[in-house]
Amino acid sequence: MATLREISKKIGISIATISRVINGAENVSEETRKKVLKALQEYHYQPPQVARKKLHYLVGIIVPNLLGNHYNMISESIELELSKHGYDSFVTSTHLLLNKEIEILEQFFSRRVDGIIICTTKNDDKHIEKLIRSAIPVVAVDRNDSDINVDTVGIDNYHSAYIAMKYLYNKGHRDILFVSGEREVYSAKVREKAVIDFSKKYEVNLKILEGDFQFEGGYSSIKKYLEKNGKDFSAIFFINDQSALGGTRAIYEAGYSIPDDISIIGFDNDKYSKYLYPPLTTVHQPRKEMGENAAKLLVERIEGNGSKVKRKIILPTEIIERNSVKEVKK
Amino acid sequence: MATLREISKKIGISIATISRVINGAENVSEETRKKVLKALQEYHYQPPQVARKKLHYLVGIIVPNLLGNHYNMISESIELELSKHGYDSFVTSTHLLLNKEIEILEQFFSRRVDGIIICTTKNDDKHIEKLIRSAIPVVAVDRNDSDINVDTVGIDNYHSAYIAMKYLYNKGHRDILFVSGEREVYSAKVREKAVIDFSKKYEVNLKILEGDFQFEGGYSSIKKYLEKNGKDFSAIFFINDQSALGGTRAIYEAGYSIPDDISIIGFDNDKYSKYLYPPLTTVHQPRKEMGENAAKLLVERIEGNGSKVKRKIILPTEIIERNSVKEVKK
Repeated sequence: MATLREISKKIGISIATISRVINGAENVSEETRKKVLKALQEYHYQPPQVARKKLHYLVGIIVPNLLGNHYNMISESIELELSKHGYDSFVTSTHLLLNKEIEILEQFFSRRVDGIIICTTKNDDKHIEKLIRSAIPVVAVDRNDSDINVDTVGIDNYHSAYIAMKYLYNKGHRDILFVSGEREVYSAKVREKAVIDFSKKYEVNLKILEGDFQFEGGYSSIKKYLEKNGKDFSAIFFINDQSALGGTRAIYEAGYSIPDDISIIGFDNDKYSKYLYPPLTTVHQPRKEMGENAAKLLVERIEGNGSKVKRKIILPTEIIERNSVKEVKK
Repeated sequence: MATLREISKKIGISIATISRVINGAENVSEETRKKVLKALQEYHYQPPQVARKKLHYLVGIIVPNLLGNHYNMISESIELELSKHGYDSFVTSTHLLLNKEIEILEQFFSRRVDGIIICTTKNDDKHIEKLIRSAIPVVAVDRNDSDINVDTVGIDNYHSAYIAMKYLYNKGHRDILFVSGEREVYSAKVREKAVIDFSKKYEVNLKILEGDFQFEGGYSSIKKYLEKNGKDFSAIFFINDQSALGGTRAIYEAGYSIPDDISIIGFDNDKYSKYLYPPLTTVHQPRKEMGENAAKLLVERIEGNGSKVKRKIILPTEIIERNSVKEVKK
């Protein structure tokens, strides 16, 4: 393990420049940056407070917000796994920071985090690029963009949405509504693409309603649709279980029953989903395992045992069959 | 603003001892501790990184876990309010730390938090006492224990449970089930007391079922009760909305409808509660305002404008009347 001074001497680059690289500053040439990062890795450089005081490693977890289920469960699992390795961790919401990307960087660098796990699917998070440019190890969850040069953990959203459609299709459904999520969210875009592709291939009569991953979007989209068009479909695929819960109320309010009149399938397998009435058939997303794997990848990176190439871990999803989908005549 | 050295000189106590007080160590006499704390306040002592670098203040928020709704919504609101004041914040789950009270202390002190907001209702959190003994400003949410010497924000759990019972009573219900929460949780204990007191006073035929604030406890307690006793009641008061959601499934599975056969009322007003079918009548708990108030109290303490005496802010709750309670013959 070498100090900055020693590394500076060895590679003939000033400490100030090395610091700029560590802190992700932009006024460093790409060539210099690569040289510095290589040297930091080679000489197992560790931030001073770790080397000096043997404090616990500290990991910052970035989530879009704390209000849903998805990122809470993933970050809970990350924290649990990190604590097994003796790491400290904390969670920060990006939505609190809005466009203040400088603040999040400042916070992370000034608090000297040893690693970062990014759990956010929006594609316009520019601060993530800065983080990736820095010397701090980063693992991304739910971001399978091939152009991100970090280890990632996620599910195959395309395949998962495809099997949900296939499940409805195999139960005889040919007129299907899909309640979508915001399209700037990576997973929403990909799931929608799968739904469209499937429908084209199997000649499903598909209608797409705009949703938002929230209870309200599920409720209002179905309510409006039923008011305008009546029940000209036999099944609904909701982008997530929250939308499905909201949609359920709209279905009941319009006087239909589930699954006798309308079959529904969700996505996620939220904690409450098996307590809904009828219990919700859904695609299980392995959030616990996503968190565990992300934590393990990061620990490897921080402790210098990480792979030389970036790794992309895709975890399996599965249909959880309950009682909200009925077989209909084909 | 004075440095430790200056304060040490002025009050004639060594820097080492002052540091021990700041870090909540126990090997300091009560007299010395008080003297030091008074001096720190008087001379507006600030941790070195704040004084030196003008970093943002950092607040640690302690919650039992990230998985429910209650503490997530409160901490989201705390973080939003703190960010308006230019503060940074992070969230830590106590359940990850188990009995490792030393670790949480070490983490907080080593990361140099400027203030702490404790959102946890278990009465056996011994580390909280240590935090309170330290010089770091602390605000507690959901802990109205009169023996805690810090500012607190909460609701009147007794009154809130009492008015829920009164609501059912006024609708004609005289045979009522109460699904409780774990009794080591402060709010559960107090709500249960109110339910018992009300029932005695108004001669309600009360039965108490053991629950756990979770979907499962609501489901299994009602399921078992109905299997054993049948429907010998007309209404259920669930300790929270999650229990009510779980209980709903047990009611439907047994072939009863809500509210025609069984009326139910929850507590919290969770985000999904208005999307349940029927929409759930419940006691609204002002989590957003609880978080905001806690953040404001802490900011005042950190910036030295806090009250000399401890403050206890009790926020109002209210019944949100939806469609899960029916009027019955008295």
